[in-house]
Amino acid sequence: MMPTEIVRTHGYAPEDLAYALETRHAVENRLRHMLEGEGSDIPGNLIAAMEHALIAPSKRVRPVLLYLIAEPDAGAQESVLDLCCAVEMVHTASLILDDLPCMDDAMMRRERPTTHVAFGQSTAILSAIALLTRAFGIIAEIKAPPAIRTRLVSVLAKSIGHKGLVAGQEIDLNGRAHLTDETDVERLNWLKTGIFFVSCAEMGAIFRGMTSNQLGLIRTFAKHLGLAFQTADDLLDGTDDPNRIGKDVHKDDGKATIVSLYGERRARMTCLEHIEAARQALRSSGVRHLPIEALIDRYLTSKIAFDGK
Amino acid sequence: MMPTEIVRTHGYAPEDLAYALETRHAVENRLRHMLEGEGSDIPGNLIAAMEHALIAPSKRVRPVLLYLIAEPDAGAQESVLDLCCAVEMVHTASLILDDLPCMDDAMMRRERPTTHVAFGQSTAILSAIALLTRAFGIIAEIKAPPAIRTRLVSVLAKSIGHKGLVAGQEIDLNGRAHLTDETDVERLNWLKTGIFFVSCAEMGAIFRGMTSNQLGLIRTFAKHLGLAFQTADDLLDGTDDPNRIGKDVHKDDGKATIVSLYGERRARMTCLEHIEAARQALRSSGVRHLPIEALIDRYLTSKIAFDGK
Repeated sequence: MMPTEIVRTHGYAPEDLAYALETRHAVENRLRHMLEGEGSDIPGNLIAAMEHALIAPSKRVRPVLLYLIAEPDAGAQESVLDLCCAVEMVHTASLILDDLPCMDDAMMRRERPTTHVAFGQSTAILSAIALLTRAFGIIAEIKAPPAIRTRLVSVLAKSIGHKGLVAGQEIDLNGRAHLTDETDVERLNWLKTGIFFVSCAEMGAIFRGMTSNQLGLIRTFAKHLGLAFQTADDLLDGTDDPNRIGKDVHKDDGKATIVSLYGERRARMTCLEHIEAARQALRSSGVRHLPIEALIDRYLTSKIAFDGK
Repeated sequence: MMPTEIVRTHGYAPEDLAYALETRHAVENRLRHMLEGEGSDIPGNLIAAMEHALIAPSKRVRPVLLYLIAEPDAGAQESVLDLCCAVEMVHTASLILDDLPCMDDAMMRRERPTTHVAFGQSTAILSAIALLTRAFGIIAEIKAPPAIRTRLVSVLAKSIGHKGLVAGQEIDLNGRAHLTDETDVERLNWLKTGIFFVSCAEMGAIFRGMTSNQLGLIRTFAKHLGLAFQTADDLLDGTDDPNRIGKDVHKDDGKATIVSLYGERRARMTCLEHIEAARQALRSSGVRHLPIEALIDRYLTSKIAFDGK
């Protein structure tokens, strides 16, 4: 399957992809702007570590998704970009921590040495806390009705904590032995990736003021998309080389994943099923869906179709 | 100086101290209630680590201060206790992280093995993130006008992040060599302890709806109280035994503190000056001050007067 054929299949135009990629640049400019706007009274090593982790090559899938779902008018663009920065800070914090020696012990991330390799463990951990905390501070101060801001804080907190990302990482590190079937693995993938995907998309929908029916569709969309990304990640971990994906590979060898339990073919099928379910929900949600579909093909469909399998 | 003399000096009655200590129990009951109310779908190890760190012997100075400043009526008590739990979770998270091998490498805390000793480093770090995140989630959902909640989130985030506790810990670990005089050390103490003390007190004042003038007095009070506690901590670290204070001592040997720079006598004087400045501001603030003064004597004045020096 060639990229051009995919384009025809889903009916989006080059402008749709361009719009999604411009959004990514807007998010990255805003992230840079935020770090540069800091006072000089912050310990230099700390701000350098935050920048090292944050301003590194990345697809920015989560914040871009948030933005494309929020579809802000001109007056609300800055606030939505701030929200985008907040979720990217949370995501980056989770990567810094996941990579620590006591967790995945990774050396490379986003085409750079991991933060603890470059700055030492203590500064890496502190930079993660700083990014995480900053995210909540940003949301509390965006231009939006306070009731919207408190909802956003609440949704984000739930997706990170002991019933979200943190729970997923704990099970991934210390509970893999108890995972025996696809249901267990999908629950882990849900906690590790799905729940935070959903919260990013939901934040965009909440900011936009969607009805609860639309919100439900956005959640369904993001849930399947997150699971598709996690399954693709498991596939790439087993088959790809580190130079292409910018981080360590084979970190999951020996762990129960859809790939290790049922093989690559089944994992690829599962991934495609999640992508299809995500598209269905997205198209019904009322969001301008073509830029998002363009991104899905670029970052997901084309990756798992790689090498013709 | 005997405790009874102190009592007479500052004019508080046994009821004042009893009231402050009851507040501590109310906070601890609420913390327990919160953890018990969790679903069974959380990884057992994670919730056990959170509980190990959180439900351990502690004076709960920060949340008690918040409560005594907020002085909630019956209808607002639950909300303020929730706020108390939030700041105690943040404080506990900071202790878990400070104790890690890559930071202070401490074995004992709150009369127990530190969280990483009991549960391993990865679970310790994850439990700290879970507590920190939970704190923001709790604040976002208390019964209070949304505009108050967003202010509370903002104040808390600022005191934790790269201009607050995190900055303090970074300087403490990696920047001590650059500390040469009392101003530097006081700035570090401000970041490590003062700023979070102020944010806890400020949160109580914001919830209560204080005027900006009163808020200023509360900030002054808490700033001096926090610096007094940090100076007392430095004194105890050099002179006390671990069984009495429930954590490792001599962790700061070789570090620049008021004690190491100017000796115990000067440090004790500095501490007493901060206590006096704190009392002055407190008495002008309009808060019922006697229970707080009773606590100051119990936890601070009597400690640094210990062994008659």
